[in-house]
Formats: sequence, C-alpha cells, structure tokens
Amino acid sequence: MATAAETRAMRRAVELAARGLGHTSPNPVVGCVILDAAGEIAGEGWHRRAGGPHAEVHALRAAGERARGGTALVTLEPCNHTGRTGPCAQALIAAGVARVVYAVADPTPTATGGAATLRAAGVEVEGGLLDEEAAAGNEAWLTSVRHGRPFVLWKYAATLDGRSAAADGTSRWITSPESRADVHRLRAQADAVLVGSGTARADDPQLAARTGDGEVTQPLRVVLDTEGTAVRPGARVLDGTAPTLIAVGPDAGTALPAGLAEVVRLPRATDGRGLDLGALLAALYDRGVRSVLLEGGPTLAGAFLAAGAVDKVVGYLAPVLLGEGPAALAGAGITTITQALRLDVAETTRIGPDLRITAVPVPPAIESDTDQHREN
Amino acid sequence: MATAAETRAMRRAVELAARGLGHTSPNPVVGCVILDAAGEIAGEGWHRRAGGPHAEVHALRAAGERARGGTALVTLEPCNHTGRTGPCAQALIAAGVARVVYAVADPTPTATGGAATLRAAGVEVEGGLLDEEAAAGNEAWLTSVRHGRPFVLWKYAATLDGRSAAADGTSRWITSPESRADVHRLRAQADAVLVGSGTARADDPQLAARTGDGEVTQPLRVVLDTEGTAVRPGARVLDGTAPTLIAVGPDAGTALPAGLAEVVRLPRATDGRGLDLGALLAALYDRGVRSVLLEGGPTLAGAFLAAGAVDKVVGYLAPVLLGEGPAALAGAGITTITQALRLDVAETTRIGPDLRITAVPVPPAIESDTDQHREN
Repeated sequence: MATAAETRAMRRAVELAARGLGHTSPNPVVGCVILDAAGEIAGEGWHRRAGGPHAEVHALRAAGERARGGTALVTLEPCNHTGRTGPCAQALIAAGVARVVYAVADPTPTATGGAATLRAAGVEVEGGLLDEEAAAGNEAWLTSVRHGRPFVLWKYAATLDGRSAAADGTSRWITSPESRADVHRLRAQADAVLVGSGTARADDPQLAARTGDGEVTQPLRVVLDTEGTAVRPGARVLDGTAPTLIAVGPDAGTALPAGLAEVVRLPRATDGRGLDLGALLAALYDRGVRSVLLEGGPTLAGAFLAAGAVDKVVGYLAPVLLGEGPAALAGAGITTITQALRLDVAETTRIGPDLRITAVPVPPAIESDTDQHREN
Repeated sequence: MATAAETRAMRRAVELAARGLGHTSPNPVVGCVILDAAGEIAGEGWHRRAGGPHAEVHALRAAGERARGGTALVTLEPCNHTGRTGPCAQALIAAGVARVVYAVADPTPTATGGAATLRAAGVEVEGGLLDEEAAAGNEAWLTSVRHGRPFVLWKYAATLDGRSAAADGTSRWITSPESRADVHRLRAQADAVLVGSGTARADDPQLAARTGDGEVTQPLRVVLDTEGTAVRPGARVLDGTAPTLIAVGPDAGTALPAGLAEVVRLPRATDGRGLDLGALLAALYDRGVRSVLLEGGPTLAGAFLAAGAVDKVVGYLAPVLLGEGPAALAGAGITTITQALRLDVAETTRIGPDLRITAVPVPPAIESDTDQHREN
C-alpha cells in the first residue's frame, strides 16, 4: 500500500510527465519523484526529449545521495533495456533506492521486465498507483503501442448547427481566439498535424504550433495530396517552420522543388477514394510519429472515422448558427441511423465563448447478435 | 434593505412561482411568502392557473391573522387592477401587512401602480430583491409583454455534426430517453407547441406533453400548414389529447372534419415562402399564448431566426456522428460569415449521455456604424 506522501508524489510525477508532451516520441512521457528515506522529496525529473535521459535519471541526479534507502515514484514501469540511455532499473538499483512505486506497467516487449529486475535486486516494487491518471497522460503513446499505429485525434470546429463555413465558403473567426489558441496547444502536443488536399488548397494553412512558449517541438506537417496537385511551391506549409511530408498516390506527378518537403508515395485506398490510410499511418509510425492531430477537412475526417482510425474527437462548437454551408463531417459511409457512430463525451469545457467537447468513439456493439440471443 | 430572512423567503417565493409554469397564461407566474411580525414564515402561495386566485391571496389565506404586522415577499409587484380576482394591493392592505418586498416591477399598463397604492396606505414597500432570479423565472411572460408577441423557444436535437437524421431520413433515438423526457418538460411549460408542415407530414407527431405528472396543462398544438395538405384526418395531432390549431394560407383548401382542430387562415409571408410569422404570433397572442415551443423542422426554424423571432435556443446534442443527412437548421437566409447569427451560451448541461445547450441570440451590433465613428 502506498502512503499518502507517495500518492502526493505520484500525482506530482504525473504533472511532471505532462511537461514532455509533444517532445518525447517515439518514447512515452514519464515523470519521476524520489523521496528520501524520511519521505521528503529529494529529486524530481521528467523525460524531456527522445534521446535524452529518462525521467528516473534526471530525478536520481537531483536527489544525489538522498536517494539511498528512499522511494522512487515513476509514472511508467522503469525500463529494463539498454537503449540510447541505459536501463533505468539498473540506475535505480545502483543509487540504492529501497522501494519503487510505478503507475502503469510498460507494455512494450523491449522495455518490459524492469519490475522483475528491481525485485531480483531486492528492491520493493509496487505497481498501479494512480494508474488511470498516468495512463490518461500517456494516452497517445499507450494507444499507439496497443494498435501499432499513431494515436489519432480528430479536431473540428463548427457552429451549433454543424457548419464549418458559411454558404459562400467564408469561415474566418467562427470560433474564438481562445479556441484557436487551444488548437495550437493540441498541435504542440502532437507529433504530426494532418490535413487533406481540399484544406491545403482552400486554406493554404501553415500548420505550425504557435503557443507563445519557446519550448515547442514543431509537429511534422502532413498533407494527404493524392493527385500531388494541392501543395504548390510557395504554399505556407512549405515555409520551413517545421518539417513537412506530402503523401501522394502512385500515379501522382509532383512539381515540388526538392528540399522543401519529403514526398512519400502510398497505395490508393481499396475503394479508390484517396490513399490507403493504414499505409499512411504505418509510414508515419515508422518515422516515430505516435500521435496525429487530424485537422481536416470533412471528407478526410469521414474516411478516418469510417476506417475506425479515430481515437478521440475534440470539437470546438461556436455559439453561432448559419443554416447553410459545408458540414464539419462528410463521407463517413453512414446511411442509416443504426450505423451512426456513437461516442462517449469525456469532457465539456467553455473555451472563451465556445464549447469544447471531448469524446471517444464507442466500439460498435454487435446488436443483431445480441438480439438473436434474446430471441432464443 | 432586505433582511437575510427576507432574502431566503424571496428565494422560496421564486421556487413557488415556478410551479405555475405552463398553467398561468396569459398571466405571469408569481410566488408569495408571508413572514409574520417575528419574521417567521406564516403563509406561502403561488398563482396556480389563470382565473384562479393570485399568489398573494393564497399566501394571505394560509397566513390568516399572522399576516398582520408582517412582511409579504412577492416575485412580481402586486397588481392594482380589479381583474377576475380583485387587486392584490388592496388584499395586502386589508390583511394589515406592514411591509411588502417585491422582486420585479409589473410592466403591464393595466396592472401597474400596486407599489404606489401600498405606499399611499402606509405600507413600507421595497422593490428589486432577487429581481434577476425572479425575472428569469418569468422570462417568457416578461418577453411577451416587452415584444407584444409570445416568447419563442426553439428546440432542436442534432448530432455533434449538426444532423437531425441519417441520410435515409431515419432519426429514431438520436437523442436519449433523458433528453426526450426533458423536451416533454419544455412542452408542459409552454403554452403552445409549433411545427411546420414538413415535420407534420414526415413524423406525424402527437405534440402532447407527457411528463408522468398529473398536473400538466397541455399546450396548444399548432401546425403551420400553408397549403392545408399536411394534417390529414387520422393525424395524431388531432387525437383530442390537447387543443389543436392549424394555420393555413389564404388559398388553402382544407379537408379537416369540423371539431377536431381550429383552422386559422393567415396571410402569406412577403417573400412568398410560407405564412407571415408575425401574423401567426399575433393570432397566438390573441388566444392568450405567451410562450411557444418551436419544435421544427429546419426550414421553419430558419424562417423564425431570419425574422428575429427566436428568443432562446435549446439544443440537445447527441454524442453521435453521421456525416450525412439533413441539417438541424436550414434557410435562415445567411450566406456569408459576417451575417452569422451569434448567441450567448447561457448554460450547458449533461442530460443522460447528451449535452443540452441553452443559448440566447445576440442582437446584431451595428458594426459599420461603429467603424465609421472610429474613422472620424
């Protein structure tokens, strides 16, 4: 059983872990707090960037000799493998830590086993403390490990009647400055930002994260441009602010000058509409992308939803009515109400005058099957 | 200055007033609490139905002799006119009440003056206590007095992407049982429920308030049926559960058997699309209707919004995505983003799995005018 001081320290470790969001892929975010033998905080650390020291190493360095006989609180089971930075289990043992409490077990085959190594060295080990909070903080990474593809967050902005623009296509300032700032925060936490050719053509977006914070790791900017005609030289997405990847179809010619973006050629979707999203996600995963912010447009979002490749939805609803204009979502392949994609609302928050709704798709129940059982 | 006991008693009076919602039109809802000379609650009352005693009379009866030297807390300025039930100002004077505290001044020319009459009789009078809460409880009636037409509440149900049905028209159970029960509560509080011919034809709605509460005053069911072809004999809206009014255009033939509904003939709108909504609202006002629940469909809602005749919007957003299907709102005459109808979100509430958003249209600012001033 964890003590109250340990629970407080783990909560602090979860907070520290969150500081790494957007900087650590393909690694998880991890936070660590070392308590000395008397239960006082002796050191804190978090994993700041891929290739840099793990959270435990930062915290042990800060604690110094006070770690001996103390307790380490870590949001993820300490790693056991010798990667770029050496196994943390060994570092904890070497520092003389008497007890290790972690929140979430490490699900990766190469890193797992840290708890067993610690126990074999005589360290007391306990898992599961604040595991829900810690898992929520590592949601993207844990989802990517489970599915073997990046976590996909679909963000949309719409009026209360579901329009993303007016009838003439104008959409400027549907949502508030506060909501737009919040989207930049989402971009900064994502490894990649993705739009389709329609959005690239219509809006010429820069897709950079502007948060007013110097520590932003810019996400990879990805444009799904099947025909290779949407991103033209001079497009803002090629401005050098962040790396850019253009995904094109097998037959696409591309007129992009070399050096402004990486061009990756992908197979077409089996239904012939656009590119194979599985191949796209695999290509991004191979590049270390563990989280994708899907920003538009409605048809690309529909294709992702139809493919079951959206893990979370964040909708910014502006208190505005239009009555005409393009919808925020199209082409999800749903024709009747029983096929509707259902979600669980996880959170509703006021962002300036707008509402931000965070929701998670509910896996479809096999209802006809259940009904059959009921009739038997 | 009101005492703490008086403020508590006024809050109670506001609660009591709300019990009358849906039963009192064309009168307001009113609650009254009598405190005796020692400041203890001696009597409570509320206006239960048009034609019945006013709140003050109920409360004075309950208080009996304890009213003498006491204080009356009333949510609306006591009336001064001799209507069906005699002026309340006189009743309070006759009961020997020493002090009257009211929340909201009576804005109607025939009833106003109660405060002056009380003062002339030596009663201490104070107005404005909890006036915002009391005014919110009487929102529909106060709005109807201000505009000389019924208060209009537009209710819609939609998916997160703004669809009111799937592509094939199916819409059953988009929102939850909890949301549907909440709509029945709105119906029970309204004097009339209004739909257009499209909804009447497609859904054959009954439009009755079913709340599981025996005290419901059924709202007048109103169908706007310009051509007189949507409501056919056998329609559920003609089932006798509640009175029904069919508004038809000047040229409409009507095949309705006599006695099942009142048919009122109205002029066409000046743009030729449907009926003149001002004439419709005037006809309803003349029948004592002070609040209308506008239930659909999208085109009728668009016409009301375009006419500036929606006072409040209640949207039930189901955590569902469709990507296809009819929109919740259409034909509001908005073609570009600067014309967008903006609202203030007053409240967001979870209703079962759904979100209920309550919002109030913001009167359009005269921006070009402001800009001109700024340039001078």
